[in-house]
Amino acid sequence: MNVVEKIKVSIVGASGYAGGELLRLLLNHPNVEINQLTCQQNQGKRVSMIHPNLRKRFEGVFVDKSELSETDFLFLATPHGIMNKELPQYQKLAKKIVDLSADYRLNNADDYKKWYKFEHANPELLKESVYGIPELHREEIKKASLVAGPGCGATTMIFSLWPLREFTEKAIIDLKVGSSASGAAFSMASHHPERTNAVRPYSPFLHRHSAEAEQETGIKVDVTAHAIQMVRGILGTTHLTLKEKLSEKDVWQKFREAYSDEQFVRIVKDREGVYRLPEPKIVAGTNFVDIGFTIDPRSGRVIVFTAIDNLCRGSAGQGIQSMNLMMGFEESLGLNDLGLHPV
Amino acid sequence: MNVVEKIKVSIVGASGYAGGELLRLLLNHPNVEINQLTCQQNQGKRVSMIHPNLRKRFEGVFVDKSELSETDFLFLATPHGIMNKELPQYQKLAKKIVDLSADYRLNNADDYKKWYKFEHANPELLKESVYGIPELHREEIKKASLVAGPGCGATTMIFSLWPLREFTEKAIIDLKVGSSASGAAFSMASHHPERTNAVRPYSPFLHRHSAEAEQETGIKVDVTAHAIQMVRGILGTTHLTLKEKLSEKDVWQKFREAYSDEQFVRIVKDREGVYRLPEPKIVAGTNFVDIGFTIDPRSGRVIVFTAIDNLCRGSAGQGIQSMNLMMGFEESLGLNDLGLHPV
Amino acid sequence: MNVVEKIKVSIVGASGYAGGELLRLLLNHPNVEINQLTCQQNQGKRVSMIHPNLRKRFEGVFVDKSELSETDFLFLATPHGIMNKELPQYQKLAKKIVDLSADYRLNNADDYKKWYKFEHANPELLKESVYGIPELHREEIKKASLVAGPGCGATTMIFSLWPLREFTEKAIIDLKVGSSASGAAFSMASHHPERTNAVRPYSPFLHRHSAEAEQETGIKVDVTAHAIQMVRGILGTTHLTLKEKLSEKDVWQKFREAYSDEQFVRIVKDREGVYRLPEPKIVAGTNFVDIGFTIDPRSGRVIVFTAIDNLCRGSAGQGIQSMNLMMGFEESLGLNDLGLHPV
Amino acid sequence: MNVVEKIKVSIVGASGYAGGELLRLLLNHPNVEINQLTCQQNQGKRVSMIHPNLRKRFEGVFVDKSELSETDFLFLATPHGIMNKELPQYQKLAKKIVDLSADYRLNNADDYKKWYKFEHANPELLKESVYGIPELHREEIKKASLVAGPGCGATTMIFSLWPLREFTEKAIIDLKVGSSASGAAFSMASHHPERTNAVRPYSPFLHRHSAEAEQETGIKVDVTAHAIQMVRGILGTTHLTLKEKLSEKDVWQKFREAYSDEQFVRIVKDREGVYRLPEPKIVAGTNFVDIGFTIDPRSGRVIVFTAIDNLCRGSAGQGIQSMNLMMGFEESLGLNDLGLHPV
Repeated sequence: MNVVEKIKVSIVGASGYAGGELLRLLLNHPNVEINQLTCQQNQGKRVSMIHPNLRKRFEGVFVDKSELSETDFLFLATPHGIMNKELPQYQKLAKKIVDLSADYRLNNADDYKKWYKFEHANPELLKESVYGIPELHREEIKKASLVAGPGCGATTMIFSLWPLREFTEKAIIDLKVGSSASGAAFSMASHHPERTNAVRPYSPFLHRHSAEAEQETGIKVDVTAHAIQMVRGILGTTHLTLKEKLSEKDVWQKFREAYSDEQFVRIVKDREGVYRLPEPKIVAGTNFVDIGFTIDPRSGRVIVFTAIDNLCRGSAGQGIQSMNLMMGFEESLGLNDLGLHPV
Repeated sequence: MNVVEKIKVSIVGASGYAGGELLRLLLNHPNVEINQLTCQQNQGKRVSMIHPNLRKRFEGVFVDKSELSETDFLFLATPHGIMNKELPQYQKLAKKIVDLSADYRLNNADDYKKWYKFEHANPELLKESVYGIPELHREEIKKASLVAGPGCGATTMIFSLWPLREFTEKAIIDLKVGSSASGAAFSMASHHPERTNAVRPYSPFLHRHSAEAEQETGIKVDVTAHAIQMVRGILGTTHLTLKEKLSEKDVWQKFREAYSDEQFVRIVKDREGVYRLPEPKIVAGTNFVDIGFTIDPRSGRVIVFTAIDNLCRGSAGQGIQSMNLMMGFEESLGLNDLGLHPV
Repeated sequence: MNVVEKIKVSIVGASGYAGGELLRLLLNHPNVEINQLTCQQNQGKRVSMIHPNLRKRFEGVFVDKSELSETDFLFLATPHGIMNKELPQYQKLAKKIVDLSADYRLNNADDYKKWYKFEHANPELLKESVYGIPELHREEIKKASLVAGPGCGATTMIFSLWPLREFTEKAIIDLKVGSSASGAAFSMASHHPERTNAVRPYSPFLHRHSAEAEQETGIKVDVTAHAIQMVRGILGTTHLTLKEKLSEKDVWQKFREAYSDEQFVRIVKDREGVYRLPEPKIVAGTNFVDIGFTIDPRSGRVIVFTAIDNLCRGSAGQGIQSMNLMMGFEESLGLNDLGLHPV
Repeated sequence: MNVVEKIKVSIVGASGYAGGELLRLLLNHPNVEINQLTCQQNQGKRVSMIHPNLRKRFEGVFVDKSELSETDFLFLATPHGIMNKELPQYQKLAKKIVDLSADYRLNNADDYKKWYKFEHANPELLKESVYGIPELHREEIKKASLVAGPGCGATTMIFSLWPLREFTEKAIIDLKVGSSASGAAFSMASHHPERTNAVRPYSPFLHRHSAEAEQETGIKVDVTAHAIQMVRGILGTTHLTLKEKLSEKDVWQKFREAYSDEQFVRIVKDREGVYRLPEPKIVAGTNFVDIGFTIDPRSGRVIVFTAIDNLCRGSAGQGIQSMNLMMGFEESLGLNDLGLHPV
């Protein structure tokens, strides 16, 4: 039997939710061997104490970032604002890197300063990094040494806007977001008795994601995000007023052109059935983007519904999809999980 | 001590969710005595078997509608389409009626046919009935013999649109709705394993509610409704593009003008705190309308957030508020419950 | 009209969940006027920022405990271990006190030390304080100046054991508990993504509650508590192996003897229907104890199911019930709310 | 490269929850090709309309059972009581069968009649069928042509009892069960507004599962089952009074002897951490049995906690584990998914 030569993959910031999701997926990736996992708070602790789903499959411990050695591939899963400064030192350890933080998503330093309120420490790397949505930048990603993993909200917005981007200049996007999108740091707002059953408007965070969406699509987006009772998942409801009225057939065609060849994008638009439009719970744990639309017959408004798992397609899964391209692997390797139903 | 002379109140269709909510509230109303409760499916059954929250406080049984006798006040809580035809026979039993169904909400028969797809059987009563939002029609309700209880979605929309109605002609409204809004009839879509964790776009039902909102405010509304993981409650997110740019101070003033004197409307807009904007869980079980807003500094878009309990303010509570006015009682009688926190 | 002379009530530790629940109930209590509310962390802050359900009904602020003045009645709602030492100074401010913490629940200092691991600072007050379950200690509470509000878990256990206490010496109790029972202090375990969907065995805390149950019933209880997906509520499942086999009729009789005359205790045991046995969601926000049982025909084991709201009957509501008795009011004053359905 | 010759697998009753779970897993099984899927209600319908998680990966349709042809392996996933009669006709179509219904779990016809209240139509097949827990019956399963998939509750109980089966004669088991365990048929009890937030004692169904547990372990079990707010998952809390007192070290040793070599059984018992004991959400979608214990120092009672996914390990996953053994495949083939965290 042919033996696959596995690449060694390390993760910086492996105790967070994105780091845990990377691990979950990489442990079942046929071409990957886990190398080192760093975490500043939990060095020496068993990884499966933090990520209990990995028990018995992975019993390694977290190491300090100073212990990190050279590796074939490196994922950076630290909070925003760290890799901005520190990335160059990690480039010495790995020739290929996916950074899941926000630090290398925007193409120029001015935009970065405008949205993140401070100067970027390595503006020249903003030009080098490729925005990591394979469906938009597949060829560039294949050649990239640095890929910036898009934001979960931005991923939702961009897939929603892409097929009709030539027909509109402006969109109103209403996001419904699960609690894991705010990360593993706890607060009063995330305290279970307060956060449970919330339908809570919030906004600052996702304004930033709109910067990515505007960069990639050229459409001005007004975003309103709501925290709802869900752990994983985002549903984006995008209201599009088109420059010219399109028939349902026309819109179908644009969606098909955009996505029919994409194995991870599913157009969900049935005439009947409980799940005739996308829902985040159906894609939880998967790399799928489920996307559907309806047209308001009176106003002509097109409403696009897009569902992803914020931790998988919105972070770790999409990052691995990029890694597969960067390493010359089949794009879907390690990403074939189907979601659960019922759930 | 002064003895209050209580009025006798009957409910037609008392086994549904609106009927149960009426009972819960009326049992603690100081001026009300429950008279008869009808239900076609459950006649002879103990009411508290269907509404288990009423145990030990109310141990009556459901009767057939043919047994209904004259009463001081009558609530109609049957499904849409029944009172359209049958209302006149109930007018013989009570001089004052609140109908919680959709049948008398629209002012003219043409609109009714357009939205409900069949002829109204008693079009002349559409003129007689008063649309039951006390904050808009207080004086008419006081004199009315027939009040039409507004839809829960419509109530949310109208309160959202009312303060700025002169500054806009069009609104996009995104509703997040709990499962009780679909009533007590079960189906595959409401089966717990399927409905739980849903973030499910749906629309037909609430298009109808937009007819009420357009009638009352004159604003054209494009509504998109989503079923989310919640039993009681609606959050309406209303995106308003204004004809002229208003400052935050101006918008505040319009909201204050509209609602400061209203004991059941709370403007919720804080600078900090977990609950700085409205949330449905905070108003569950109450007659409050919690309403707040933000202004997108870039686009000038005003986003209004409105939270109600669909069964209380969106149906039974608002109906009792109308009853209080129709009977000359203090408007808030029996409606002083505060919501729970945490919940 | 007769004017009720209202008593002035203050709350020490009013920003926690028990404090908020006291406020919610007392604001609708006909004989009570809120006096002062203390909180060390939030002095000067508007109370409704912490308890958003109270907006527009109560707009006072928290004061420092040093500002507390004499009052007709005082509730203590501080964390366990504080009133142990500080109670005497509060007794100077009010002649009648209900302490909701664990500090005065046990009758003797040895038990206290055994279960709480440190010496009680005011052991003589343990003799003076009355254990605040009115259904067990009504006459003592009427005369008491200090009542100790029972633990929520203990309340569940005691009501479960009381009717058959003569027929058993030992019980296994399995508790299912909502997240609000752990209070307003947040941690990783209460972080929404971690706590949501939990069915999490935990125990230390409720071992302590078993001390109260053993003191009051004389039955040795082995408790296992589980945190489940719920904010408010406890269901206790009590497995009783009886000394002699009892028929269903016998057990019914014992339950009726114990509870038929109690307005807040409802025996819930139907032959059919969705809610034929007690469920915590039906009693949320109420002072009810819903209690039912089944008998395993093969083993003779009696299984008792008891549902309460941990914050209302398990803390604030039961405290107000005691206050009513201590002040000579009708026992149910301010406690007539019915729970919500559906919810 | 070596080509795997795939076996053709058909499923009878593929539209239910167990059928859907089989499909989800088999579509990623390297040695399996889906052959035919029957469903009486949905013949001709696209399978992914019923199981929306399978979209784009599987676009076949359901066929009528009369169309079923010979196949390498057959799963039966029909409701209880059907295969009792019909199994022999399916044995003509496949030499190896796993029946997930209850019909062939009990070893003799008398037990069947006692628990299921009617005569078994094929009592001789009860002797032939092997009870499908591989950890207990691995060698028999390898040789079996008919395996009976255990009940989800029974699986939970048996794993809980197995390590200490020699030290006890009797157990009290408290189950917390998700809504998918009741299947895809909807009713008032499963209507989302009624079932949500339930902590609902129910029993009849699981008494039947106790028959399996008693058959396999020889221990008499008193089971009380509760429906809680969860879609997938069971937590079993087993209270064991031992014949002789065992130390924690002794119990650890018994658990290790029973399970250390089993790749799908994880002993979960940590000193610290949020997930120091088993929880069903951590195993959702997996074939793992997570099992832990605590010892009450006062009473010596051992409490065993066991978490499984009722649809995966409690039905489809365990069925595939048996299929792997029956077909001579590696036992874990197609079952390597890790659960999600957070979730």
